[in-house]
Amino acid sequence: MQSPAIDGDRLWSRLMQLAECGATAKGGVNRQALSLEEHAAWRLVIGWAESAGLAASTDAAGNLFLTLPGSDAEALPVMTGSHLDSQPTGGRFDGVYGVAAALEAVCTLAEAGVKPSHDLVVVAWMNEEGSRFAPGMMGSEAFAGMRSLEFIRGVRDAVGISVGEALDAQMAEFSALPRKRLGFPIGAYVEAHIEQGPVLEAEEKVIGVVTGIQGKKTWEISLLGEEGHAGTLATADRRDALDAFSRIAQRMYREVGGDDPLVKFTIGRLRVEPNAPSVVPSRVVFSIDLRHPDNAVLDRLGDALERICKESCAPCDVELKRLVSAPSNEFDSNLQATIEQSARQRGIPSMHLLSAAGHDARYMAPLCPSAMIFIPCRDGVSHAEHEWAEPAHVTAGADVLLDTLLTLCGD
Amino acid sequence: MQSPAIDGDRLWSRLMQLAECGATAKGGVNRQALSLEEHAAWRLVIGWAESAGLAASTDAAGNLFLTLPGSDAEALPVMTGSHLDSQPTGGRFDGVYGVAAALEAVCTLAEAGVKPSHDLVVVAWMNEEGSRFAPGMMGSEAFAGMRSLEFIRGVRDAVGISVGEALDAQMAEFSALPRKRLGFPIGAYVEAHIEQGPVLEAEEKVIGVVTGIQGKKTWEISLLGEEGHAGTLATADRRDALDAFSRIAQRMYREVGGDDPLVKFTIGRLRVEPNAPSVVPSRVVFSIDLRHPDNAVLDRLGDALERICKESCAPCDVELKRLVSAPSNEFDSNLQATIEQSARQRGIPSMHLLSAAGHDARYMAPLCPSAMIFIPCRDGVSHAEHEWAEPAHVTAGADVLLDTLLTLCGD
Repeated sequence: MQSPAIDGDRLWSRLMQLAECGATAKGGVNRQALSLEEHAAWRLVIGWAESAGLAASTDAAGNLFLTLPGSDAEALPVMTGSHLDSQPTGGRFDGVYGVAAALEAVCTLAEAGVKPSHDLVVVAWMNEEGSRFAPGMMGSEAFAGMRSLEFIRGVRDAVGISVGEALDAQMAEFSALPRKRLGFPIGAYVEAHIEQGPVLEAEEKVIGVVTGIQGKKTWEISLLGEEGHAGTLATADRRDALDAFSRIAQRMYREVGGDDPLVKFTIGRLRVEPNAPSVVPSRVVFSIDLRHPDNAVLDRLGDALERICKESCAPCDVELKRLVSAPSNEFDSNLQATIEQSARQRGIPSMHLLSAAGHDARYMAPLCPSAMIFIPCRDGVSHAEHEWAEPAHVTAGADVLLDTLLTLCGD
Repeated sequence: MQSPAIDGDRLWSRLMQLAECGATAKGGVNRQALSLEEHAAWRLVIGWAESAGLAASTDAAGNLFLTLPGSDAEALPVMTGSHLDSQPTGGRFDGVYGVAAALEAVCTLAEAGVKPSHDLVVVAWMNEEGSRFAPGMMGSEAFAGMRSLEFIRGVRDAVGISVGEALDAQMAEFSALPRKRLGFPIGAYVEAHIEQGPVLEAEEKVIGVVTGIQGKKTWEISLLGEEGHAGTLATADRRDALDAFSRIAQRMYREVGGDDPLVKFTIGRLRVEPNAPSVVPSRVVFSIDLRHPDNAVLDRLGDALERICKESCAPCDVELKRLVSAPSNEFDSNLQATIEQSARQRGIPSMHLLSAAGHDARYMAPLCPSAMIFIPCRDGVSHAEHEWAEPAHVTAGADVLLDTLLTLCGD
């Protein structure tokens, strides 16, 4: 059949309305997982979905589903989407684009009277970013059975609120939604997203056919010293956790973050205790985010980071907590070919590329044929308030997604 | 006249009651400036003072005064005290001992029917610690005319509450107290305090006659980089403010904190923005506390710290804010002799020593003859929950303070 076309103006307008949920003064978005701002985004998305005839539901992990029912009760659902949560100083596209494009594609099909054979399910995963509650991708990991609900519900944010408490509050707020079984069977998964890197822009391509996601390891490291008076305690008698941190961090930046341009090494979060100007720090807790496309290199660098902590922490003690250890993966080659063909038929320039950033699709890939569609973002910038994507690219990505969904439904 | 003796049991009991205001699970105290916990300590102290016939009052800087009126209206008041605020993980003696000992000495005189010629004023200065609102010693600096009320009222804590707002709330809570003029004339000032260092304990002395306070400089340093995605932004393109911090900090720990055992160099407070595990840090704000008894060395090391920031911040930018620049001072020699003689007459072993920690007495010294009385603290530890002083030393310090006050009143 002839594909209907995405209404680019409506899609853009909805993205900008979603950007009002948690809008920051500098034009970005602060819409963290399970926050009131994310609740507001849920209400917008559910309203749009229901007026196109889609049915909203949720599950025990706080994932949101918007379903256009298919004609064949035996056919496994085709799922598409991403996440609505953002970094504390995030932008208007990361995550929310994949949800808005998926909703636009499925609503467009519904409004055109298309009755797909398979259920078409738009998903907004819970806590992809991991900024309020670490680690991220909790919703998709729980859906895929990679993390227990019990573990997830016990994670706390910086002010002590647990995921469990925040989830229960969300369930109370959206108590009218039916509850789906966690991890119900899925036939295929496609996620649209901004690239979060400079490759498409540099190569002047509009669609990225994502071949896989580079491997990632994360840690939470605690350095334990002893507090004391800044004016009286002699340097030789100090066990200063911040001195230990800066010594360890400098070795890591040099020895791990150093020469190989494929290595991405980041210490993004750090907390000092008691954090008073005239007290020698007794405790420093910091995060490590390490990524590399080559799993062997990733393992080697991860070992090096742990070794540096142990070698350079004295006179403090160190505690290492491994949070994420996800090797590089490869997306389904047939699904990649489908996306590439959709772009070609629409006359949209595309290329294959590896995702440097992590996505929920990583956890869907072991469950069913999965793939991702990237569009460019200005200067490769994301996780920043000035993150930007061009309206024409936003529309193009949704058009290619719509065609891909139609192919997956066999129509 | 024959000096009355301090009731050591009552003094100890009152110290332990004050330790309940902001008590921590580990036996310490979290009673930060202008907090509800400090309000509770005010209520205790005012109650004890009033039942001994002392009159409570305050001033526009939130200092608390408890006055035993003198017989000679022309004689300048003799002031004694310290502060009731603590570090976030502070102990049961730092500051509060000086207030409790002063109150005990003056109450003892009042209860013995002594009518001094001079007003005897017990003071609890506002925000000595500077942990909630930086810098510290705001109350005594304002009293001494060294900082404007306008500056002080504008300082904000970590959650955005200003000193002005917290002061107004305190004034409303204690609206019955008369308001004294800020910086009313004082004839002499004596402050009792735990040593916060190991010297008295090592030398087996119970009273330290403080010769002066070592010089101190403090800064707030901001490193300004640019945020970006931890998984996609190449190391070469990063302006990582935490990388810059750890590089600068390592140079400072080595080049400034290094060899000279008299140098005290501390980075006690640090904040990262946006502080999310998968975002390259765009901003790091940290405190520096530098102390040295030799003013020439202090100046030289201060210059070195500023130079290191400028030399090693690239590719980030740096902003330096100087907060405190207090040279070493010398306390009044006659008053030191009075304290020494009081100790000798009581048969209490004493010695002269320099204070490594800063105190409100630093700001009183230019206004009137000033001095300090130290007692030992276990292992020299302070600014920590296990800070400890022996009951016998607590009593001895108050006895010597009482004698000193009597001498100052010419009785």
